[in-house]
Amino acid sequence: MKNNRPVILVTNDDGITAPGIQALIRIAAEFGEVLVVAPDSPQSGTGHAITINSTLHFNEISAPGAPIKQYSCSGTPVDCVKFAVIELLKTKPDLCLSGINHGSNSSINVIYSGTMSAAVEAGIEGIPAIGFSLGNFDWNADFEPLAPSIRQIVSQVLHKGLPQGVVLNVNFPPSDIKGIKICRQAKAMWEERFDKRQSPHGRDYYWLTGNFVNQDKGDDTDEWALANGYASVVPVQFDLTAYHAMQHLNTFDLNKND
Amino acid sequence: MKNNRPVILVTNDDGITAPGIQALIRIAAEFGEVLVVAPDSPQSGTGHAITINSTLHFNEISAPGAPIKQYSCSGTPVDCVKFAVIELLKTKPDLCLSGINHGSNSSINVIYSGTMSAAVEAGIEGIPAIGFSLGNFDWNADFEPLAPSIRQIVSQVLHKGLPQGVVLNVNFPPSDIKGIKICRQAKAMWEERFDKRQSPHGRDYYWLTGNFVNQDKGDDTDEWALANGYASVVPVQFDLTAYHAMQHLNTFDLNKND
Repeated sequence: MKNNRPVILVTNDDGITAPGIQALIRIAAEFGEVLVVAPDSPQSGTGHAITINSTLHFNEISAPGAPIKQYSCSGTPVDCVKFAVIELLKTKPDLCLSGINHGSNSSINVIYSGTMSAAVEAGIEGIPAIGFSLGNFDWNADFEPLAPSIRQIVSQVLHKGLPQGVVLNVNFPPSDIKGIKICRQAKAMWEERFDKRQSPHGRDYYWLTGNFVNQDKGDDTDEWALANGYASVVPVQFDLTAYHAMQHLNTFDLNKND
Repeated sequence: MKNNRPVILVTNDDGITAPGIQALIRIAAEFGEVLVVAPDSPQSGTGHAITINSTLHFNEISAPGAPIKQYSCSGTPVDCVKFAVIELLKTKPDLCLSGINHGSNSSINVIYSGTMSAAVEAGIEGIPAIGFSLGNFDWNADFEPLAPSIRQIVSQVLHKGLPQGVVLNVNFPPSDIKGIKICRQAKAMWEERFDKRQSPHGRDYYWLTGNFVNQDKGDDTDEWALANGYASVVPVQFDLTAYHAMQHLNTFDLNKND
């Protein structure tokens, strides 16, 4: 990786064998030297988890001499980014791409998503980063129609950069893409339930399941864009300070001498 | 729980047996009817992970007739909040308290913290929520000196409420508390390394470890407050949209007809 092509780290949360990451690797290789470090098993919904209470294993799974080095990791997407930067590259890559996720990460899903948490981790480390997701959970979904839009977004980020402290959350609608819109995160949430079952040994257990509910009527949101056939691009920050709440908090009686 | 006292959900990420949550339960019981749902094992660093790829188990661990019902959960802190609201209370509690965490969750740690992710999950569900953390990893740390400050913050939140979409991240310095300051999240990160070891069977494995580095010189940050002996209160939001980045993104050439 000692030429002038950008070094691009690729990861995901569906695991290194997912068709989505393989599609993203092919696109990334058009732009630069690619290193892949991704989970060895599905890690959907792991959010920004890191592995500190157990050990981590990494295995090179690419053939010796293969043009793209690929490593699997026993941990989370965030672990993958850390290992790639610290142990493998020993320097920051020029770009981190995460995905393409099998399933949407729009709206509040940005918080639960391992795909987006990998991009956020790269952002925390000062690396321009983009997470890509397709609103289709099908393992055999066709990622090919996304390629032109992904190329365009990657090209613009490589040329124009991203503001410090900001990464991109890109979501694609399940079919034809009308265009690409810059959006805000829609106010939405999951209405969940616990599916109660009983094991063959008589013990109760539960599966978490639920429906996504968009409470946001705005036409400037990622949910609006996706529902209307556009790809959504949301700039995502990891300074979580709610500056607008400071005024209210300053009315709190917290100190004796206030 | 059929009187006028507020219903308070208590959880954490260190596990239900941790002294920190037991201290928080005692304080919460002064204010209302308490329900405890917390992980059955340490879940530090799990961030906003949810359990969707495996089953969940919950066990009531309080004695029959005990004044405070306590449940342990095989999943993450976020799972605990969902289960408490959906399956046990079947309505939203008036307040969710998470912690007291053994170790700081100031600055960027808000993103990795299971304790804070539980509070954020409650916030997403429209429940006023506060995460409490003590900058001391000692299992036998003395939580008693924090009680007056926690009482004051809980009392203010119960009386004055929190803005929608905002939860509180409260951190305490390891010793004497000079006062309580409303702060912004400091710009900081972890400089990590992977401690490489070899198993008795000759296989390499790694432990993730590192040092916290505060790059922020501001005197309005949580890190400044803690370093100067104050408890820090940061309002935290889960709309991650970086609105300030929109202008830059609008210069991107993303659509053929732009």
